[in-house]
Amino acid sequence: MSHYPPTLVKLIREFSRLPGIGEKTAERLAMHILKAPQKQALALADAIRDAREKMSLCQTCFGLADGQSCHICGNPARDPSLVCVVEQPADMVALEKSGAFSGSYHVLQGVLAPMDGVGPENLRIAELLKRVAEGGINEVVIATGTSVEGEATASYLSRILAEKGVSVSRIASGVPIGGELQYLDGLTLKRALDYRRKV
Amino acid sequence: MSHYPPTLVKLIREFSRLPGIGEKTAERLAMHILKAPQKQALALADAIRDAREKMSLCQTCFGLADGQSCHICGNPARDPSLVCVVEQPADMVALEKSGAFSGSYHVLQGVLAPMDGVGPENLRIAELLKRVAEGGINEVVIATGTSVEGEATASYLSRILAEKGVSVSRIASGVPIGGELQYLDGLTLKRALDYRRKV
Repeated sequence: MSHYPPTLVKLIREFSRLPGIGEKTAERLAMHILKAPQKQALALADAIRDAREKMSLCQTCFGLADGQSCHICGNPARDPSLVCVVEQPADMVALEKSGAFSGSYHVLQGVLAPMDGVGPENLRIAELLKRVAEGGINEVVIATGTSVEGEATASYLSRILAEKGVSVSRIASGVPIGGELQYLDGLTLKRALDYRRKV
Repeated sequence: MSHYPPTLVKLIREFSRLPGIGEKTAERLAMHILKAPQKQALALADAIRDAREKMSLCQTCFGLADGQSCHICGNPARDPSLVCVVEQPADMVALEKSGAFSGSYHVLQGVLAPMDGVGPENLRIAELLKRVAEGGINEVVIATGTSVEGEATASYLSRILAEKGVSVSRIASGVPIGGELQYLDGLTLKRALDYRRKV
């Protein structure tokens, strides 16, 4: 690194802080920034700044939004009576990409993790209960992950939501489509057997 | 991509313009920018802008410099009478990392490539001849690559430098250290045989 001028060293260091970018790749990206058209290089700098300064969380579902409301909560074609609860904005994007869901979302912004000091008060659970209490929601689909924390969060949510007179469901878990049984872990296979459906 | 708000789509698009960054990685980097500490995210934006606005080419060797002169041309411990000619600043960095060279450099900023319309006037060749004409240089080591263009550039330079009364050399080519002969191409092996040294 000492073979580069200080300004370039700083750029390489900042690039290498990104996930999955090692020092070699950071060097290559920095050299690209120097060689790329001025407009393109500065467009990246501006896009980073804009993302941090303009992006916010939707005031309804806490998904990513450019303004007060996200493009899903603001879309009249979406069903507001069906709410899918996810951990992170990225999960919401994955579900959207599948095209399988036409309701609205609620992003918890994490999972319950007592070991890391994350309790219900650190997640957007109070806001979910408030949405349910305001009425108009028929069913809440809990789509947290199937990690230990994701399952614990799902179980906690289903318990507190059951008292609110709303239908609560959990996404199915089992063998992924295209998955070969021989490569799957025992827990997944056990789950697939336990939750087998009559055909 | 349409599943993201426009500001985020723009950031993903800018990241995916970088070399070796596909759309998936660009998405991951953009999400990281949103989640990273404000200071770290903006430091990257600033480093990109600084690199474009502050970095320039050394007025002597045309290597990367923070100001008028690079840290090698400005270093009195380096031998100014021995000049190594390279294609790109990255080549200069590779040689510096090897620690094998203590002279100064001259960066051509490319190679002769008539098919792409790159002639001697598009490279820093006139500036090299000027440095040689000004005196104080005993030897020029031509360290352009061993591609067709690199070899052609080396041969062109050695011809025009020979008339200037300066000693001209070319870096050795042959079997790389740690290289196994069975995996090497025929041209490299031919070169290694042609240029064999008496031991």
